[in-house]
Amino acid sequence: MLDQRRLPGEVVYHNYTDYRDVAKAIKDMVIRGAPAIGVAASMGIAIGVEKSHAKTLDELRAEFTFICDTLAQTRPTAMDLFWAIDRFKRRFDELASAAAISGGGLPGIANIKAGLVQEAQKVHQERRQADERLGRFGAGLLPKSGRVMTQCNAGALATGGIGTALGVIRMAVDAGHKVEVLVPETRPYLQGARLTAWELHQDGIPLTLITDNMVGHFLKTGGVGAVVVGADRIARNGDTANKIGTYGMAVLARENNVPFYVAAPISTLDLSIPSGDHIPIEERSAGEVTHLAGIRISPDVPAAHPAFDVTPARFIAAIITERGLARAPFEDSLQKLKDQG
Amino acid sequence: MLDQRRLPGEVVYHNYTDYRDVAKAIKDMVIRGAPAIGVAASMGIAIGVEKSHAKTLDELRAEFTFICDTLAQTRPTAMDLFWAIDRFKRRFDELASAAAISGGGLPGIANIKAGLVQEAQKVHQERRQADERLGRFGAGLLPKSGRVMTQCNAGALATGGIGTALGVIRMAVDAGHKVEVLVPETRPYLQGARLTAWELHQDGIPLTLITDNMVGHFLKTGGVGAVVVGADRIARNGDTANKIGTYGMAVLARENNVPFYVAAPISTLDLSIPSGDHIPIEERSAGEVTHLAGIRISPDVPAAHPAFDVTPARFIAAIITERGLARAPFEDSLQKLKDQG
Repeated sequence: MLDQRRLPGEVVYHNYTDYRDVAKAIKDMVIRGAPAIGVAASMGIAIGVEKSHAKTLDELRAEFTFICDTLAQTRPTAMDLFWAIDRFKRRFDELASAAAISGGGLPGIANIKAGLVQEAQKVHQERRQADERLGRFGAGLLPKSGRVMTQCNAGALATGGIGTALGVIRMAVDAGHKVEVLVPETRPYLQGARLTAWELHQDGIPLTLITDNMVGHFLKTGGVGAVVVGADRIARNGDTANKIGTYGMAVLARENNVPFYVAAPISTLDLSIPSGDHIPIEERSAGEVTHLAGIRISPDVPAAHPAFDVTPARFIAAIITERGLARAPFEDSLQKLKDQG
Repeated sequence: MLDQRRLPGEVVYHNYTDYRDVAKAIKDMVIRGAPAIGVAASMGIAIGVEKSHAKTLDELRAEFTFICDTLAQTRPTAMDLFWAIDRFKRRFDELASAAAISGGGLPGIANIKAGLVQEAQKVHQERRQADERLGRFGAGLLPKSGRVMTQCNAGALATGGIGTALGVIRMAVDAGHKVEVLVPETRPYLQGARLTAWELHQDGIPLTLITDNMVGHFLKTGGVGAVVVGADRIARNGDTANKIGTYGMAVLARENNVPFYVAAPISTLDLSIPSGDHIPIEERSAGEVTHLAGIRISPDVPAAHPAFDVTPARFIAAIITERGLARAPFEDSLQKLKDQG
């Protein structure tokens, strides 16, 4: 796993062989971005089950359940995490049924382990393909030339593919659009300054880094043709949880008649909840606000750190998925896309 | 001069005896905040003239003009800087006329020097009184209890008195309001995290520090009863330049039905310009965005650093001055307050 906390200064990879280390890496943000968390959790489950010493199906199932529960407790907002766990639970049941039919025992357990490792590889592979399709669907929404704004990092580092929001931008550039990307730094973790700036710089896509409080000024005066952001969870009505600051960006985009797009895979949809009011918002450590790069930047005062906010669907021009675009009313359009699976 | 770049970690005072050092201190943000810049420039002019070796009135006038021009080139947006220079030019003319009548020469020059030193002390004294009056006019606009949001630092450090926006908050607390202040950190200089948090913490006024991209989330969900900010320049129609991020805060306050107040002395009014389109916006070094506390936080990419933005008057519920409140239409109400002087 590429340690995203140390980019762009250092490129450090960690090799995890214990699912608990994978869970800790997700919680500590070695890896982040809802789709990438989904891939990492899939890998974590596969690693955990593969190393099991269980001798019976029941033992294995108990261990599998414990592994899933451990991973589920890492990041509460990211839908793809729960999507991945649900997918693995269904796959485990299928494999376990097949193993039981063929007599269970150690050969059956070996088959389940191999099946879950394959499933994790499949999740990663599907993610790459989904990003490319999503990027192609979204590219046409961006201006032929001019500025585009994004938020946080919804790039390769956040998905394992070419990214969602940055996938759209990459596909637009591929198709000949001459865009410059305005990148807000995204405090407290600086995913914009550290990760999005790094990805775009490596790809040779022009960018300008700004602080988060410049978003309104540039939407008003900076010639921005579109905003495209990722998502951590999308409710049935289209309300979208994403990195803190996204809601403000959406309101300011609307105020300045700039279309605001959300780019996210189907695995980020949570059609079980009617609206964004039901999305749990992760509260992280206040120390991440009062410190930067280990340096205290404020007196010893209380600080708040909601990691996400909710953008009401009415601010969203379209949700871009790997199965096409959803537009208002989102209850209908999102359900239709989901049902295509 | 208290070095605001080093707060809250270190409390360091600089003693300036050369007006060029005062100009550099203003440019480098040892001192900042439009009203405080006005006081500092007044002191700088007085120091410069006091140390002059001019032997004739004409020589002194030439030196005085050069000193004023040097100070005028430090920060283009802060109206109080130009207000102070204009005031000193008028005062110089008065003193020079009197000196000419009484025969000029070295005694006349000594009188001018003494007169300008007194004028600088008077500016500082008036500033303190203005802040208190302004604070009293504004206090009643804040909720009796609950949260208030501010931006950047419009406190004692920004004025030399009790502050404008923070003066309003201090006077409200004095009057028994139970308020907690939400303080956005205000990148890139972190005036919120470093200065406003420090001032409020020292006064025992409850606060919560947030990052700039949390402003929307807290205006939507955080029970904020009012926003009160300072100003760097206010145009005839009420359009207000203030620290970058203020415009976004105003739009998000309107979206969430939170009243948005600007607190500023009469010296911040620029009734010579019809609207905010005519306010020069200072562009500072991109290195202040790509670095924090001397540490590079991004790859070597372009960055933008407009230091201010303009909030259209339609988002402003009232402008709080030391002569009372101005409300829309601001052309009338601001002119009336100005004419009281």
